[in-house]
Amino acid sequence: MRKHNKKIGLPPGSVVFTGNKKVDNVHTHYLAFNETYCNDQIIESHSKTILKKPSIEKNDWYDIRGMHDTDLISQVGQIFEIHPLIQEAIVDIHQRPKFEEYENGIFITLASISFNSTLLEIKKEHVAIYFNTGFMLTVQETDSDLFAYVRKRINTGKGKIRLRGADYLAYALIDSIVDNYYIVLDEIEEVIEDLEKRIIETQQVQDKNKIHQLKKELMSMRKSVSPLREAISKFSKTENAFIEHSSQLYVRDLYEHTIQVMDTVDATREILNGLQDLFISEMSLKMNQVMQLLTLISVIFIPLTFLAGIYGMNFVNIPELKYENGYFVLLTVMVVIFIGMLLYFKRKKWL
Amino acid sequence: MRKHNKKIGLPPGSVVFTGNKKVDNVHTHYLAFNETYCNDQIIESHSKTILKKPSIEKNDWYDIRGMHDTDLISQVGQIFEIHPLIQEAIVDIHQRPKFEEYENGIFITLASISFNSTLLEIKKEHVAIYFNTGFMLTVQETDSDLFAYVRKRINTGKGKIRLRGADYLAYALIDSIVDNYYIVLDEIEEVIEDLEKRIIETQQVQDKNKIHQLKKELMSMRKSVSPLREAISKFSKTENAFIEHSSQLYVRDLYEHTIQVMDTVDATREILNGLQDLFISEMSLKMNQVMQLLTLISVIFIPLTFLAGIYGMNFVNIPELKYENGYFVLLTVMVVIFIGMLLYFKRKKWL
Amino acid sequence: MRKHNKKIGLPPGSVVFTGNKKVDNVHTHYLAFNETYCNDQIIESHSKTILKKPSIEKNDWYDIRGMHDTDLISQVGQIFEIHPLIQEAIVDIHQRPKFEEYENGIFITLASISFNSTLLEIKKEHVAIYFNTGFMLTVQETDSDLFAYVRKRINTGKGKIRLRGADYLAYALIDSIVDNYYIVLDEIEEVIEDLEKRIIETQQVQDKNKIHQLKKELMSMRKSVSPLREAISKFSKTENAFIEHSSQLYVRDLYEHTIQVMDTVDATREILNGLQDLFISEMSLKMNQVMQLLTLISVIFIPLTFLAGIYGMNFVNIPELKYENGYFVLLTVMVVIFIGMLLYFKRKKWL
Amino acid sequence: MRKHNKKIGLPPGSVVFTGNKKVDNVHTHYLAFNETYCNDQIIESHSKTILKKPSIEKNDWYDIRGMHDTDLISQVGQIFEIHPLIQEAIVDIHQRPKFEEYENGIFITLASISFNSTLLEIKKEHVAIYFNTGFMLTVQETDSDLFAYVRKRINTGKGKIRLRGADYLAYALIDSIVDNYYIVLDEIEEVIEDLEKRIIETQQVQDKNKIHQLKKELMSMRKSVSPLREAISKFSKTENAFIEHSSQLYVRDLYEHTIQVMDTVDATREILNGLQDLFISEMSLKMNQVMQLLTLISVIFIPLTFLAGIYGMNFVNIPELKYENGYFVLLTVMVVIFIGMLLYFKRKKWL
Amino acid sequence: MRKHNKKIGLPPGSVVFTGNKKVDNVHTHYLAFNETYCNDQIIESHSKTILKKPSIEKNDWYDIRGMHDTDLISQVGQIFEIHPLIQEAIVDIHQRPKFEEYENGIFITLASISFNSTLLEIKKEHVAIYFNTGFMLTVQETDSDLFAYVRKRINTGKGKIRLRGADYLAYALIDSIVDNYYIVLDEIEEVIEDLEKRIIETQQVQDKNKIHQLKKELMSMRKSVSPLREAISKFSKTENAFIEHSSQLYVRDLYEHTIQVMDTVDATREILNGLQDLFISEMSLKMNQVMQLLTLISVIFIPLTFLAGIYGMNFVNIPELKYENGYFVLLTVMVVIFIGMLLYFKRKKWL
Ligand SMILES: [Mg+2]
Ligand SMILES: [Mg+2]
Ligand SMILES: [Mg+2]
Ligand SMILES: [Mg+2]
Ligand SMILES: [Mg+2]
Ligand SMILES: [Mg+2]
Ligand SMILES: [Mg+2]
Ligand SMILES: [Mg+2]
Ligand SMILES: [Mg+2]
Ligand SMILES: [Mg+2]
Ligand SMILES: [Mg+2]
Ligand SMILES: [Mg+2]
Ligand SMILES: [Mg+2]
Ligand SMILES: [Mg+2]
Ligand SMILES: [Mg+2]
Ligand SMILES: [Mg+2]
Ligand SMILES: [Mg+2]
Ligand SMILES: [Mg+2]
Ligand SMILES: [Mg+2]
Ligand SMILES: [Mg+2]
Ligand SMILES: [Mg+2]
Ligand SMILES: [Mg+2]
Ligand SMILES: [Mg+2]
Ligand SMILES: [Mg+2]
Ligand SMILES: [Mg+2]
Ligand SMILES: [Mg+2]
Ligand SMILES: [Mg+2]
Ligand SMILES: [Mg+2]
Ligand SMILES: [Mg+2]
Ligand SMILES: [Mg+2]
Ligand SMILES: [Mg+2]
Repeated sequence: MRKHNKKIGLPPGSVVFTGNKKVDNVHTHYLAFNETYCNDQIIESHSKTILKKPSIEKNDWYDIRGMHDTDLISQVGQIFEIHPLIQEAIVDIHQRPKFEEYENGIFITLASISFNSTLLEIKKEHVAIYFNTGFMLTVQETDSDLFAYVRKRINTGKGKIRLRGADYLAYALIDSIVDNYYIVLDEIEEVIEDLEKRIIETQQVQDKNKIHQLKKELMSMRKSVSPLREAISKFSKTENAFIEHSSQLYVRDLYEHTIQVMDTVDATREILNGLQDLFISEMSLKMNQVMQLLTLISVIFIPLTFLAGIYGMNFVNIPELKYENGYFVLLTVMVVIFIGMLLYFKRKKWL
Repeated sequence: MRKHNKKIGLPPGSVVFTGNKKVDNVHTHYLAFNETYCNDQIIESHSKTILKKPSIEKNDWYDIRGMHDTDLISQVGQIFEIHPLIQEAIVDIHQRPKFEEYENGIFITLASISFNSTLLEIKKEHVAIYFNTGFMLTVQETDSDLFAYVRKRINTGKGKIRLRGADYLAYALIDSIVDNYYIVLDEIEEVIEDLEKRIIETQQVQDKNKIHQLKKELMSMRKSVSPLREAISKFSKTENAFIEHSSQLYVRDLYEHTIQVMDTVDATREILNGLQDLFISEMSLKMNQVMQLLTLISVIFIPLTFLAGIYGMNFVNIPELKYENGYFVLLTVMVVIFIGMLLYFKRKKWL
Repeated sequence: MRKHNKKIGLPPGSVVFTGNKKVDNVHTHYLAFNETYCNDQIIESHSKTILKKPSIEKNDWYDIRGMHDTDLISQVGQIFEIHPLIQEAIVDIHQRPKFEEYENGIFITLASISFNSTLLEIKKEHVAIYFNTGFMLTVQETDSDLFAYVRKRINTGKGKIRLRGADYLAYALIDSIVDNYYIVLDEIEEVIEDLEKRIIETQQVQDKNKIHQLKKELMSMRKSVSPLREAISKFSKTENAFIEHSSQLYVRDLYEHTIQVMDTVDATREILNGLQDLFISEMSLKMNQVMQLLTLISVIFIPLTFLAGIYGMNFVNIPELKYENGYFVLLTVMVVIFIGMLLYFKRKKWL
Repeated sequence: MRKHNKKIGLPPGSVVFTGNKKVDNVHTHYLAFNETYCNDQIIESHSKTILKKPSIEKNDWYDIRGMHDTDLISQVGQIFEIHPLIQEAIVDIHQRPKFEEYENGIFITLASISFNSTLLEIKKEHVAIYFNTGFMLTVQETDSDLFAYVRKRINTGKGKIRLRGADYLAYALIDSIVDNYYIVLDEIEEVIEDLEKRIIETQQVQDKNKIHQLKKELMSMRKSVSPLREAISKFSKTENAFIEHSSQLYVRDLYEHTIQVMDTVDATREILNGLQDLFISEMSLKMNQVMQLLTLISVIFIPLTFLAGIYGMNFVNIPELKYENGYFVLLTVMVVIFIGMLLYFKRKKWL
Repeated sequence: MRKHNKKIGLPPGSVVFTGNKKVDNVHTHYLAFNETYCNDQIIESHSKTILKKPSIEKNDWYDIRGMHDTDLISQVGQIFEIHPLIQEAIVDIHQRPKFEEYENGIFITLASISFNSTLLEIKKEHVAIYFNTGFMLTVQETDSDLFAYVRKRINTGKGKIRLRGADYLAYALIDSIVDNYYIVLDEIEEVIEDLEKRIIETQQVQDKNKIHQLKKELMSMRKSVSPLREAISKFSKTENAFIEHSSQLYVRDLYEHTIQVMDTVDATREILNGLQDLFISEMSLKMNQVMQLLTLISVIFIPLTFLAGIYGMNFVNIPELKYENGYFVLLTVMVVIFIGMLLYFKRKKWL
């Protein structure tokens, strides 16, 4: 089924999941914390313990795994007064990364990526982040714990994260996703280094296809990174009541990271273009050598074979054939031609 | 007949249809609505029931199908005090997508597209949208109901469309056209995936031509999408009495869509460039194999054939010919050369 | 003679014609008009009836044909107080299109183009436009009536042109030149469509040269259109006493046209690049087929010919030669090899 | 010796000449002028008549030829209070063209170029210009009189140059250098037109190398023109006490020239890219023809030669050989095959 | 081990060295100076003589060699109140060059480069610079004395460096690193000039690989230069209490240098692209010549060999064989064909 058919003709704000269901038990990882307090629990059954509007004095982070449960998202949207357009964007996995300010909160969406170095494929997971003062909602497609490191830092009280609000938490979450971008680029770099060595040694069909495949994957990664960079730029520059200025110093640092990722993606694409050029010129070079060999052998033997053909003719009167040493003279002539040819090709640097 | 000849030498504001007549019965789909009221009717005979200036309390949407009827457009223009330059642009199918503010209303023009996956052709239809407070005029080339989904939402009262004015209706109409862009891109993606598989297996003339064709069509699509993106950007940012600020939140979302469409068009074009490169390197690779085979066979047999030629000569005195086992010695020599050649090519990785 | 040698070392404001004389009888088409009055006459002899400073109540349009008469231009410049730099630019046919505001008037220069579809050449004519309140001066290289349509509209009182001033007239004149750009692009498009069909069928030397020629011409056209677009943009945005705001609405429309022309020029250039790629891959494909044929024939017959050579040798003792049906056995072996080869190539999809 | 080694580790403001000495007798061409007065003299011996700070009532232009005399430059710098960074830049021939405002004056540096149409090389000369009210200092590498035309205009009182100050003189000097850019581009264009004709007729090694050479030279020219354009743009827009507004009208014109030069450089580079593509496709086309000829001859004669080989075998029992007209039947078969082949290739458009 | 794994999951401000330890004895080169005073010493044992907060009246420059000692960096950070994000950036060798203003000081990071002309590799060293009024901290990876020239100028009191503060010192340090960029580019230029000569003479596999290698290294250099240019631009334009306006005049000059380096890097990359094109067209040209030779020999001898084959057949009745001078007639025919072929190829410019 086609990607965008599901949403045709629907009014804006329709909460329609555009991906494939990836988790069976939709559940929410709830974490409430402030400087002195930390409560970490998993909500399995949303129908019973419905999410409640949190108090101001602590930070409440609802991390929902299972984006396909649009009813849950709608309910959450109503309880926390989330704008319908945000609700729609949360469950639209084709959504471009963006940073948007609404009256009640800040919405950020981005892609978490990982690299399969066997299939040479980048796997993307859509992540939605919404926060205001003391409240954080994140929605993921799968139940892989993307934010494990951040959660651990909160639980162990490492760094400043417990001292700060939802804005800093948003920074920390995005930062941990952007860290994965570096990992993916490192892995791709390794593949490319292998590929380069192999292309210089031998040119094989599968290497050409691998370059093609990697170019496509990097193009796809670029489509996630480029708008993310813009989004983080907005995040770092906006003046919004939900974001403290001291947090933005960290977002500025994160912005530098996205620029660096972007630069690396582009540089990697150029390297792949270079590899492709290398592949093609290696092939041309090999072709040249093949043709030189063919021409060498042909140019040497075709005239000799012609000479042999001449004296294989059955004319009654071919005087040379009757000479006692005619055969030996001809052999000598042939050797001279042969050596002459070799010298000629030696001078032409073919040998 | 050439595209632009019709308008040579005419003063600005001349209402000249630049396309081909595509509908016989020009008719107007009239839909009046507000929060509580909804009246849906089709005006077949414009000569009798002329369009009337609508009242303020409700929204009046005149959806004219049949752009070639320039008299009708002029009449409507006069009744609703539409600027001559707008009247001209409404019926100019070569008009670039644009968003323009005039004293009496807002004018938007764009292209609706569909994809013929057999001919690999994108079909474009020019659509003109003009509105002010409570009034909406749309003009289409054909009588296909481009806006069926929006009309249905108004009739059924789904979403917020009945609660809002002509500005929100304009958003909804453009949104439903931009939705089709996604569909077209999905369809093109399917064609490209097929093409890619086929090119990796075998390289055929028609595949090369299909890449060329798709590149042209995407270039043409880009020519519609790029100015549309600018137009929607203006729509989302302008401060104009005919547009409510709350509607612009939706237009901002639409703007994101046009950026995404643009990105996808550009990415698809790059994929096609990549396919073209793949096609060419596949062909080179195949050529190399062909030449290697030719060279292999030639290099092995040309010297052997020369040897056979030598002993096919008719010199009276060729001592080897008279040896009892001369033939068998030569055959052995030939087998040795043959095997030597095979080993040589094996070492060179040709076999 | 080289293009720019004429002006070396001269002070700025030197009125030097940089082109070739293209008209013998320099003459001026004079047209005075306002809402109620219209006087159309041709001034043949400038020496007698010298141009006079016009009154304010009507619009006076002096259309000089014959740019090489630099004395006349200087005289006109003095009478109408035209800045020396403008006088110089009027007669410099290598002048880039531009829009410049001076204390006494507005100066616009641009190129009028036409396409020779036989030679595939774009012919350019330099046009200079200078105006202030109620005064219009245009200078053309040749006596072809570039502005015939506008003149006719004034004479017949069609459109609003009689009701408006020199600023609107300037708009109308430029618009009529830009209309020709569309015509030229339509004609080039026709040539390209022909070319495309021919390249898909057969690849010929002249087609390659035609692509090269068209690319050069479009590059040249781009050099005229790109600065014109900037100039019209300035025209549409400037706040100048010589230009009424209501005229600028029309200039804005004209600006859209120049963007569209520019887009089309660039798209056409990309199409030509695509055609070039197509030409090259068609040639590669054909080369592949040629090489496959050569290889097919060689690979089949070279071993067979070798076999025939073996049994053409004159050794006294070749047992096979003496077998009664040796010949028929060999023929059978050859047929088997022949058929085996055919099957091999069939499997490799060469046949 | 390497270009930049000379300056390693030196503090800023070090007056180090980075080029090669090009003139033996360093001398200064001194020209003092105002509306009524003009004094033109050459200062040969700087050690005796040291340069003196000029009075305000006239313009004093010191035109030093011989950039390598860094002591002289330092002395002049001290007398006229020129900033150390300017003194450094004056004698640094690798300096990018720039326009800089200092407290005491304006500094401009640019490259004067000429073209050697035999070696296809652009020769650059570094020129430094410094001025303030009534004072002009220019420094050149060689004693070629780059500014001859301007000097002549001052001496003869042609144009307005005598009536104006050092700012206008600066304009006139730069203008005369930019005029040379046009000459160089005209000369390169001539070379390219020759090249194009030759490539269409025959493809030769040296033509390929010439394209490569010209591409390099134009890249080098671009490196001078691109920053010059920016510099002139600053010159035309700055508000500085040393520059009168009426002079800037002329600088604006000069700015247009630099844009045009830039456009032409870029267009010429694209033309060279086009020529390169043409060269390569001409070569491919020729290769195709060569291969077609080889294939034609091979495909026709290889089977015929095989047939001849068959009947050259020495089997005791080959019935055909004994037929009275066996030879003639075979010849007929061969002619039929030959003609069949020709018809086949005719149909394939090879002949 | 992968580049970015070390930092996964850590909170911002974690001081983690991301490179490889390059120096055994971490030590600090301490230099205190003002107009009249200069004290140069090396601190070997940081555990004993811990760095002390310097007084305001003089400039204290701590130049730490050995970036891997993160404990030392943390301690220094605490003593001098350096922001945690700076501490992290100091020891992150993958950090993009940047200029950042914090409340307590200015942080600049960049790469020092050198070129290995045998391996064709650019070696990068990460350098961190932090300063405020009277305080300068630099951290290097190795103990190579990158800043020897600057230190010498301070010790000898050359230039103005002793009269000025840490801001000017920062300028001088960066300037001395950027000077190395010129050296590297000069060295690369030499390699390219060699390469170009060799490619025009002969095309070898290693040349192709060298172009590929240099393209990669320049891409890597560009990744350091491009953000440095932006950083220096910020440095030259910022209004910050730690930077005097008179120093920024020098930074502006430095900014010009980074632009020039950037231009040269890009120009060099284009030259490499040009070389690659040259390599490929040289190969094509050579291939053409090879094929022409093969075709020439084949086309001449294949028909002649066929003729010899005809008269080598053993038909009992071949009348020509019995003619007394049949052999000589045939030889004459063959010579005629041979000469005819030669003339044909002469006319086709193959010989
Ligand atoms: Mg690239
Ligand atoms: Mg690239
Ligand atoms: Mg690319
Ligand atoms: Mg590339
Ligand atoms: Mg490419
Ligand atoms: Mg490349
Ligand atoms: Mg390339
Ligand atoms: Mg592309
Ligand atoms: Mg591309
Ligand atoms: Mg491309
Ligand atoms: Mg391409
Ligand atoms: Mg590509
Ligand atoms: Mg192009
Ligand atoms: Mg292109
Ligand atoms: Mg191109
Ligand atoms: Mg191309
Ligand atoms: Mg392209
Ligand atoms: Mg292309
Ligand atoms: Mg280029
Ligand atoms: Mg180009
Ligand atoms: Mg290029
Ligand atoms: Mg190219
Ligand atoms: Mg190109
Ligand atoms: Mg091109
Ligand atoms: Mg390049
Ligand atoms: Mg390039
Ligand atoms: Mg390039
Ligand atoms: Mg290029
Ligand atoms: Mg490139
Ligand atoms: Mg190139
Ligand atoms: Mg290329």
